[in-house]
Formats: sequence, C-alpha cells, structure tokens
Amino acid sequence: MQEIKAILDFMVEIEQLKAVVRKTRPVGLQRHENSAEHSWHVCLSALLLKDYANEPVDIHRVMKMMLIHDLGEIDAGDTIVYDSDTQDIKDAELKGIQRLFALLPGTQGEELLTLWKEFEQGETADARFAKAIDRVPPLLHNVNDNGYTWKKYNIPEEKVLALNGARISAGSESLWEAVKEILEQASTQNLFAKSAPSDRSETP
Amino acid sequence: MQEIKAILDFMVEIEQLKAVVRKTRPVGLQRHENSAEHSWHVCLSALLLKDYANEPVDIHRVMKMMLIHDLGEIDAGDTIVYDSDTQDIKDAELKGIQRLFALLPGTQGEELLTLWKEFEQGETADARFAKAIDRVPPLLHNVNDNGYTWKKYNIPEEKVLALNGARISAGSESLWEAVKEILEQASTQNLFAKSAPSDRSETP
Repeated sequence: MQEIKAILDFMVEIEQLKAVVRKTRPVGLQRHENSAEHSWHVCLSALLLKDYANEPVDIHRVMKMMLIHDLGEIDAGDTIVYDSDTQDIKDAELKGIQRLFALLPGTQGEELLTLWKEFEQGETADARFAKAIDRVPPLLHNVNDNGYTWKKYNIPEEKVLALNGARISAGSESLWEAVKEILEQASTQNLFAKSAPSDRSETP
Repeated sequence: MQEIKAILDFMVEIEQLKAVVRKTRPVGLQRHENSAEHSWHVCLSALLLKDYANEPVDIHRVMKMMLIHDLGEIDAGDTIVYDSDTQDIKDAELKGIQRLFALLPGTQGEELLTLWKEFEQGETADARFAKAIDRVPPLLHNVNDNGYTWKKYNIPEEKVLALNGARISAGSESLWEAVKEILEQASTQNLFAKSAPSDRSETP
C-alpha cells in the first residue's frame, strides 16, 4: 500500500511536465507544445518506425526511454536543441531526474535513471534510435508552421541539416532520407533563416 | 521510402490529439488537460504500476494500448466518463480510429485497430489493467483541484466510487484500495457534488 501511494505521489509530481513549454507549436495550433504531449508523440512514433532502425532495437526499452527522456526538464526547463549541449544544462537535468526518481519505491527509480542516462549518452542502438525519433516532430512542426522556430531563433538550413542529419541518420538512415526530402522542399519554400556567412569572421 | 512518408503523415495527423480537450485540469494548472498529454501520463503510470495488476500483464501491450486508446477522440471528441458509454459515442470513436489507422502502411494499422478494440472491450487481463490505470489520473486531478469536475458536472461520491471502484478493482484490487483511501479523504474535505437522492423519482 505504501509503495502504491508513493507511485501515486510520483504520478502527481510528474504532472508538471505538462507545464514545460517547448519551442515549436503542434501542427495546426497557435500555442507551444509541452513536453508531456511531446513525450507521447515520440513514444508512439518510435513504435511505428521501429522497423526502420539501422540496427535491431528493443522497442519496449526505446518506448520507456521516450516516456522519461524529458522528465529532467521539470526542474531544468526546455532548451532549444541547437543550444542544449552545455554542461550546465546537462547537470541541471541530471539533478532534476535524480530528485524525481528518488520518489519511486524499491529499485524502480534506479532502473529508470540508468535508462535515462543511456538515452542521454546515446551510445547504444536503442538510445541512438530514440534520439533519432526525438528529432523528427520538431522538424515536422516547423515544416507545417512556416519555419516558426527556424526563423524565430535564426537557424539556417545548414545548421538544421547538420544537427538533424547526424542525429537522425545515426538511428535510422532511411528515416533521414525521408526527412531530408521534406526539408529540401522546405528550403524551396524559404522556411529556414537566411544564412549569415560572415558570422564567423565577426565573432572570433 | 513511401512507407516512411506515410508514417510521417500519420505522425502529423495525430498531432490533433493535442487539441482534444478533456474535462479535468492537470495538477497545478488552470487549463484543461488534452488527450495527448493524458496518454503519456497513463502510459508511464501503467509501467510504474504493472506489478500490482490482479493478473500478470504484458506491459508492452498495455503501453501500446495506452498510446492509442484515445486516438478515436480526434474525430469524436472527449466525453466525460460518466456519460461515455452510449452507442453513438462508441460508433463515432470506432469510425474515427478506422479512418486514422487506414493511413498507416502494411499491417500496422490493422494490428493497432485490433489492440484498440481489445482495450475498448476490456475483457482481457491487459485491457482490464489498462482501463484501470486510465481512471486514476482524473481522480488525482480532482483531489488536487477542489473536486473540479465532480462539482462542475454534479457527480456525487457514490457515482465516483461505483464507476471507478468497478473499473480500477477489475484491473488492480490493491490499486483500488490505495485510491479509495484518497477518495475517502476527499469526502471528508467535501470535494464531491452533493448527492441528490430524489433525482430518480423526478426523472423517470
């Protein structure tokens, strides 16, 4: 009974993920996405795309990763992917996830923490595939939203292709091929920010 | 490539679940919950509570059910559980889910439709557990939101206990024991609508 009560308390605690606001907007909506509905979307997307992973994946583990991958944001907040690899952000998310999982009874929290770290490190087949899937919906959002965050945060095509090409093709080459075609069409529609080739010389 | 493109189109189509507004509000938020973030929440909750199912469950199947169980609402809308068992609503949800899953390539749509129907029928161990979990968050919302929908829709304690007691204990007796204790406390705090014992005689 005490264990179930602890899990129910955890269920209430993670409600806060519904208040973590992301940068893109769901297709057709004028509000920003939150990290809870994003987690649902990538979890189901991973299931649908599992047969296209570069290497065989354990889809049950991948789905679990998807469900918990953003929980660190409850304490740390969401950051745009093009800026999100700083050590400070990583540390804040780790601290947040440790606080949350400590609420769970028995070994559950420890097991989920191990899985969360595996996702973050992105070095196993399951984590590579999970990280690939995680990148797809924001691209679909922008394609269907006139390049909303690309323009807002001044992200040029090269940067979108470089980061997402590396991340998605590491998990699924064939998925990247399909997404790249969609992005090429976005380019002809001028959905990306204008490139700024002189930036490097101006900012040493 | 065509198959992946079809799945990407499906991923865009189901974005609409983020626009399906439910009756309760996430804990701490002043807006109503949407069915996409709810689907994430019950999927993760099922995983955490799997060991308390009355019968052994295949948690991977249960999680898949959770991810898709509300997709019929994209076309049919959300209805309050205390009114949701009419044939019209069931028919509209079935029609909606058939339209959606027809978008998927190969046998994926058919497999998911079979799983969705199993959830709806609630006659297997997996479906009974999934349906039990699905009932818990709205109760936790109300308990943490001064009985918001219970008061708004005039749902008295007896009705809350009857429907949820049957549904949750069918999937997990021990989960219902824990939830019942929480609801008993809600009763002492007057979070339910006042009962109206004369209703039956007034409405033949």
